[in-house]
Amino acid sequence: MSGWLIIAGLGPGDEALVTDEVRAVLDEATDIVGYIPYVKRVAPRDGLTLHASDNRVELDRATHALEMAQAGKRVVVVSSGDPGVFAMASAVFEAMETGPKEWLDLDIRVLPGITAMLAAAAHIGAPLGHDFAAINLSDNLKPWELIEHRLRMAARGGFAMAFYNPRSKSRPHQFGIALDILREELGPHTLISFAKSVTKPEEEITTVTLGEATEEMADMRTMVIVGSRGTKRIGRWVYTPRSAS
Amino acid sequence: MSGWLIIAGLGPGDEALVTDEVRAVLDEATDIVGYIPYVKRVAPRDGLTLHASDNRVELDRATHALEMAQAGKRVVVVSSGDPGVFAMASAVFEAMETGPKEWLDLDIRVLPGITAMLAAAAHIGAPLGHDFAAINLSDNLKPWELIEHRLRMAARGGFAMAFYNPRSKSRPHQFGIALDILREELGPHTLISFAKSVTKPEEEITTVTLGEATEEMADMRTMVIVGSRGTKRIGRWVYTPRSAS
Repeated sequence: MSGWLIIAGLGPGDEALVTDEVRAVLDEATDIVGYIPYVKRVAPRDGLTLHASDNRVELDRATHALEMAQAGKRVVVVSSGDPGVFAMASAVFEAMETGPKEWLDLDIRVLPGITAMLAAAAHIGAPLGHDFAAINLSDNLKPWELIEHRLRMAARGGFAMAFYNPRSKSRPHQFGIALDILREELGPHTLISFAKSVTKPEEEITTVTLGEATEEMADMRTMVIVGSRGTKRIGRWVYTPRSAS
Repeated sequence: MSGWLIIAGLGPGDEALVTDEVRAVLDEATDIVGYIPYVKRVAPRDGLTLHASDNRVELDRATHALEMAQAGKRVVVVSSGDPGVFAMASAVFEAMETGPKEWLDLDIRVLPGITAMLAAAAHIGAPLGHDFAAINLSDNLKPWELIEHRLRMAARGGFAMAFYNPRSKSRPHQFGIALDILREELGPHTLISFAKSVTKPEEEITTVTLGEATEEMADMRTMVIVGSRGTKRIGRWVYTPRSAS
């Protein structure tokens, strides 16, 4: 049997946002690998082994998936959203760097998914309707100073911004620092939207100005989208005009 | 009959990348509005009117869609990729600004899709695996000087970058200027990938260094992805490590 490894995106939560391409490989897989809540989204069936692991063990998980593919299994590594956006695709390639050369010849594919920022943007209106930057606010894998620098560069470039992992229990106050930087760079009137549990039944979307924003408005389930200075409200919608400068 | 307006993303081309959510509304629609090649992707059927229009008439198209929804039609405005990324969602909200107040009460929804940069990234590996910026290189709706400024800010922030509309017949030489700026900011060894007709049968992906890149490598069907300084090759793959600085 010839094994393969596919890194697939399950979208942000709503099953109607999973692509047929991803569904098809889930049906053919012998093994599913991923973070516990994402593996739970795959229906159990005969012949399918579910390997759920905890957060922050991405490299171990990737190595395990590569080993199984090399042994002839048909392995799908599942990510929420899109696997190439702050998710498992990079972790698999990182793991390949430390493994045997034969891994380079494995049949590997990455299948895109609807990433959280685009699902959130759709429900907010079109806040990313012009040039934008996607930034992971977690300092687990990079220094906080670099995050501050990126916030400033994105603001000075006039980019709208989408923040993944804006705030967690272990780092409750950094997001407040980020808000201070954004207020300094973009003024108090620029719009910021908080999309909690996007596409899930408990979804909640709030838009305020940077002047009104507080760090408690975000948690790990929140996608934060900051407009550019050109971002506007119309009725219940928030959008960035195509010609925004 | 109660009308509605949905702005939906058809994904980059492969029908297996259209979401069920989008398929369902296409089945319920009375009218499809969009740019000719995207409307062609919707199968004709009894009771469905296809309104295909040329490029660069986005506001007229959006206004027409709003008028039909107000008149009780079930209208889907189709975009390639994701409607919120350099596509029709912002145009619809812009058109609402100039229309009657009643448009604010219309039943409007935006449905996300797989945007070209994420499909391209998946087929390249994981070049957007860390913080990244999405930039529309067309100067139809913003001054070229602003594009140059954004390229510099994104490069100085250490963002990977995805370029939409990198080059067209009417502006063949600006992309060469963009390459010069990127070489100046990121050096000649940073990787750049060109993904032509991504997810279509004629898809073609090429990765070179900025030093090797020439403007002829891009056209309007090309998604261009520029790595950060940390972006690497492993085998046939290109990826940006999660800890790239």
